[in-house]
Amino acid sequence: MSDVRVIIQRDSEREEHVVTTGTTAGELFPGQRTVVAARIGGELKDLSYELQDGESVEPVEISSEDGLDILRHSTAHVMAQAVQELFPEAKLGIGPPVKDGFYYDFDVEKPFTPEDLKAIEKKMQEIQKRGQKFSRRVVSDEAAREELADEPYKLELIGIKGSASSDDGADVEVGGGELTIYDNLDPKTGDLCWKDLCRGPHLPTTRFIPAFKLMRNAAAYWRGSEKNPMLQRIYGTAWPTKDELKAHLEFLEEAAKRDHRKLGSELDLFSFPDEIGPGLAVFHPKGGVIRRAMEDYSRRRHEEEGYEFVYSPHATKGKLFEKSGHLDWYADGMYPPMQLDDGVDYYLKPMNCPMHNLIFDARGRSYRELPLRLFEFGTVYRYEKSGVVHGLTRSRGFTQDDAHIYCTKEQMAEELDRTLTFVLNLLRDYGLTDFYLELSTKDPEKYVGSDETWEEATETLRQVAEKQGLPLVPDPGGAAFYGPKISVQCKDAIGRTWQMSTVQLDFNLPERFDLEYTGPDGSKQRPVMIHRALFGSIERFFAVLLEHYAGAFPVWLAPVQAVGIPIGDAHIPYLQEFAAKARKQGLRVDVDASSDRMQKKIRNQQKAKVPFMIIAGDEDMANGAVSFRYRDGSQENGIPVDEALAKIAKAVEDRVQV
Amino acid sequence: MSDVRVIIQRDSEREEHVVTTGTTAGELFPGQRTVVAARIGGELKDLSYELQDGESVEPVEISSEDGLDILRHSTAHVMAQAVQELFPEAKLGIGPPVKDGFYYDFDVEKPFTPEDLKAIEKKMQEIQKRGQKFSRRVVSDEAAREELADEPYKLELIGIKGSASSDDGADVEVGGGELTIYDNLDPKTGDLCWKDLCRGPHLPTTRFIPAFKLMRNAAAYWRGSEKNPMLQRIYGTAWPTKDELKAHLEFLEEAAKRDHRKLGSELDLFSFPDEIGPGLAVFHPKGGVIRRAMEDYSRRRHEEEGYEFVYSPHATKGKLFEKSGHLDWYADGMYPPMQLDDGVDYYLKPMNCPMHNLIFDARGRSYRELPLRLFEFGTVYRYEKSGVVHGLTRSRGFTQDDAHIYCTKEQMAEELDRTLTFVLNLLRDYGLTDFYLELSTKDPEKYVGSDETWEEATETLRQVAEKQGLPLVPDPGGAAFYGPKISVQCKDAIGRTWQMSTVQLDFNLPERFDLEYTGPDGSKQRPVMIHRALFGSIERFFAVLLEHYAGAFPVWLAPVQAVGIPIGDAHIPYLQEFAAKARKQGLRVDVDASSDRMQKKIRNQQKAKVPFMIIAGDEDMANGAVSFRYRDGSQENGIPVDEALAKIAKAVEDRVQV
Repeated sequence: MSDVRVIIQRDSEREEHVVTTGTTAGELFPGQRTVVAARIGGELKDLSYELQDGESVEPVEISSEDGLDILRHSTAHVMAQAVQELFPEAKLGIGPPVKDGFYYDFDVEKPFTPEDLKAIEKKMQEIQKRGQKFSRRVVSDEAAREELADEPYKLELIGIKGSASSDDGADVEVGGGELTIYDNLDPKTGDLCWKDLCRGPHLPTTRFIPAFKLMRNAAAYWRGSEKNPMLQRIYGTAWPTKDELKAHLEFLEEAAKRDHRKLGSELDLFSFPDEIGPGLAVFHPKGGVIRRAMEDYSRRRHEEEGYEFVYSPHATKGKLFEKSGHLDWYADGMYPPMQLDDGVDYYLKPMNCPMHNLIFDARGRSYRELPLRLFEFGTVYRYEKSGVVHGLTRSRGFTQDDAHIYCTKEQMAEELDRTLTFVLNLLRDYGLTDFYLELSTKDPEKYVGSDETWEEATETLRQVAEKQGLPLVPDPGGAAFYGPKISVQCKDAIGRTWQMSTVQLDFNLPERFDLEYTGPDGSKQRPVMIHRALFGSIERFFAVLLEHYAGAFPVWLAPVQAVGIPIGDAHIPYLQEFAAKARKQGLRVDVDASSDRMQKKIRNQQKAKVPFMIIAGDEDMANGAVSFRYRDGSQENGIPVDEALAKIAKAVEDRVQV
Repeated sequence: MSDVRVIIQRDSEREEHVVTTGTTAGELFPGQRTVVAARIGGELKDLSYELQDGESVEPVEISSEDGLDILRHSTAHVMAQAVQELFPEAKLGIGPPVKDGFYYDFDVEKPFTPEDLKAIEKKMQEIQKRGQKFSRRVVSDEAAREELADEPYKLELIGIKGSASSDDGADVEVGGGELTIYDNLDPKTGDLCWKDLCRGPHLPTTRFIPAFKLMRNAAAYWRGSEKNPMLQRIYGTAWPTKDELKAHLEFLEEAAKRDHRKLGSELDLFSFPDEIGPGLAVFHPKGGVIRRAMEDYSRRRHEEEGYEFVYSPHATKGKLFEKSGHLDWYADGMYPPMQLDDGVDYYLKPMNCPMHNLIFDARGRSYRELPLRLFEFGTVYRYEKSGVVHGLTRSRGFTQDDAHIYCTKEQMAEELDRTLTFVLNLLRDYGLTDFYLELSTKDPEKYVGSDETWEEATETLRQVAEKQGLPLVPDPGGAAFYGPKISVQCKDAIGRTWQMSTVQLDFNLPERFDLEYTGPDGSKQRPVMIHRALFGSIERFFAVLLEHYAGAFPVWLAPVQAVGIPIGDAHIPYLQEFAAKARKQGLRVDVDASSDRMQKKIRNQQKAKVPFMIIAGDEDMANGAVSFRYRDGSQENGIPVDEALAKIAKAVEDRVQV
């Protein structure tokens, strides 16, 4: 037994150890139950891995990104074992970790019922308590085929070897250099309880799973293709502590309550009619009010900021997207062509930029006109796969608050600074306040333009971003090939991050469109081009705000800002007069004159999340006053009518959520 | 020689005459040079027609619609004769009358030059002076073939017999019952000067042509098909008097000056980039300002009028247009489908109505919600043939100011009344004031819905229209199959009529979409549906206003409302301060700080049709004043700054054209 020298590496600390041959990675971290695997030579290994001389060992904590994946993937194995114990005829698909959890697909006769899920969860708890060992074993293709003769999907994966892709893009690696099987072994007898073709690594034993829960089941095609058999997928979640599991479940509950698709329907804001197709929304009148208020305010601010408004069509000859290059590098994201005029291909536009370039280029431009800021609420169409379409946040048709700024190189820094400040202030006006910035820089493998231009532009973006005093996260290599960008990441009321605005430099399109302006000396110059969208898309921003506010919009955005609730029918005309006065001031005030009883009306308006309920009875009428009832149920009585109107108007003007 | 009794009929007057056998129609109107043909038994006849016993004869005046057609068609013959005298190798196509004139197509080696046209016109004058007779002769097919052996296109027409259609829809009848040839005969010798296969009738002689002019030439495919040979077309015009010809030419000159395509380019308002394709405009910043002002005002007025704003996508599954029926009866006007999701056809929408119906139908509706007025600036796409596309007035993509009103049958009359009043007032606000109405009623061959419903609805429309006190022109049989409509016809500054708004009842779509609301008694009822667009399309209305105002928009619509012109560079900052003040008030005021000299600046701003030029020099600065220069060149000096701002603001508010 000779000595083996290894180095334990934690962050930047290195600690040398000498251990005996045969020592496993796990033995380096005795009693540390939160260490679930090790990273050795850049690769993740089971804790049972036998250390080799000179290796550097990094412990993988269960709470790290890798640790969570390992926890969740191991829990998926436990679930699959439970399913096959309960449903021996079930054939295995794949079972990867996904965001916040895992899933596993099964070929079974009929979909799992809620009772099935309960039984599976119970069985999983048993397995967890058993403390089965996850044991790795290298096998040849032939041996694997023999062992897994009963698992047709696994056999198919052996055939592919490399990696297979599931329908949600999760990579399912079953082997790289070597093919491995993980055995689940009884800790006492060492008997084989279950096994799966898997690259690993895994937790040492099932006892390392601190907290898990099955969430739901769904149908899914094998390897994401409609041509393949339909499997049954079970989703679960697993966490390093019971508290984290609980917090996650509470978060999900809160997120579900705020789901914009649910609220959109409950509040009668928009819908996705089946006759129109997935990813294409219609906005109902109440949604239309909100959207119009959002747009009008944005227009006003853009006007103040010196933007000029243009309009461009939704369809164009393919020629334009050949010129812009979109048909070379973006065709997959575009709707298929329509053939007009005996053989000319027309496309729906996926972006507005090429059209704005044509407007820039419609006549000669002088340096005196720059910066020229062309703005459009431009509706674009992108061919998202129907499987990934999701409400208003990922749709097939959406309206960008899109602008393109053409400026001189000398104006670039100031213009970027000004744009970013404008973006952030505008988002703040809509009630979002928690930001960080991301700076996407050059992918050294794929870019156009000179290195100096990139460096200068990136440095400018960095300075501009740093000036905002917000956290700045680097995104190395994340830039598009045509230029670096800053993106604004935004946290909502329940802590979720949404990518909102982007400010993108473009070194490509001005070249492709041969854009020019005449400089002070009469020479032709190439302008710098900045793409920027603040909301990204109005529809998506609408959804983000809807979820952020859980439907209780600030007064200026609320479709109905106040609703009159009469104590008796005698008070209806009085409130109607109040509402008419309010409407003359541009306020959106209705009266609930239905035959419902007062308490029912209050409940209805609470559900509709109307900011102010204006109640009136005999005393109010006698005093020329009204009473306010707020969303939280509190009440304020006897407010004179003019004061009441001013109160609502002020809430609108201050853009507050009451 | 026995007697022949005939009746001369003029309007409602009938006058019996007894003439001898062999008397021609012309002999009934001796010395009446304005009578050019006769209508006998409903058919147009030459004046050389021999009267038969019992016939009723209506003189056709040269100024009547038929008379003008005969004049112009005869002039086309004269032109064709002139062409063949000058270019003996020219083969004849067709030569019908068209609006305000005529054309004739020729197969010639090369296009006519302007000199050719002059020579042809001169030759025509000769022929006119010769006073050649137009002489009708019935021929058999065989004889015609023999006579016209050298005219291949005419031979083709003999083959078709009935009627052939030219590319602009002009019917070219060459025979009905019988085939006829018109000979042009020398009045002295009776010699044949020229002949043409033609149904007639014609003027008695070429001397009956009072005034004509050749206008232009163009290429045109034989019978409008790209598969046929390309012919050369010459357009001309002919009028009952020289004064009318002169007035027409002046009108054309005025119309050309106002051509929105020309002004759109000169004033930098919009363009039709070749990369995008015919009929698809982009609006430049200045055009964008006008359009936005047009839209914003329309939105505000619609809001005040109780409309609710919705949004719908531009593309949809074909399923929707199957449901609406558009794919049955409107497919030719639609863009071709795009296939998504493995075989589902998607279409660009040619109309918004089906989508609004889905919004109506998104949840149950109560009678309390009616009338429900759904409004949208909805951009639609229609596949117009590239040959008929014309600037913004006939384009392939345009934005309707489209609304659909759902109401009860009892509300219909009031709602129609209110809608029509709203329409007319809105058009007046934009500066159009000269209207008449057209009432399109049932085509007895093609309609849905019961006769009673049509009668009631038509009667309601008639009453509503009559109430406006405007001329009401009946359009019997002109209704769409789904319901009667009122359209607003509008005369512009140079007297041209534009069809603007339509208010259309629809008995079809509520059935097809099974639209329902719950009545007061809880029963399900079918709503009445009204389609209405006020501008028709914003783009087209933009063009109409542009031509109506010849680019000199009223102040509220002008892209730049006032421009500061410094007498010297020293006065630039003063005017810039003025402009900044103005912009704070929402006025669009610029300063011309270019290096041009003052007189050049004034000329430039006059060309740009800016309503107010604000001039400032030393004296103005000293007095805190400015000087106004108006479009007409007049000037007003020493107006204090605040007064000047108020003056511009008032011109905006009053929507005046200064």
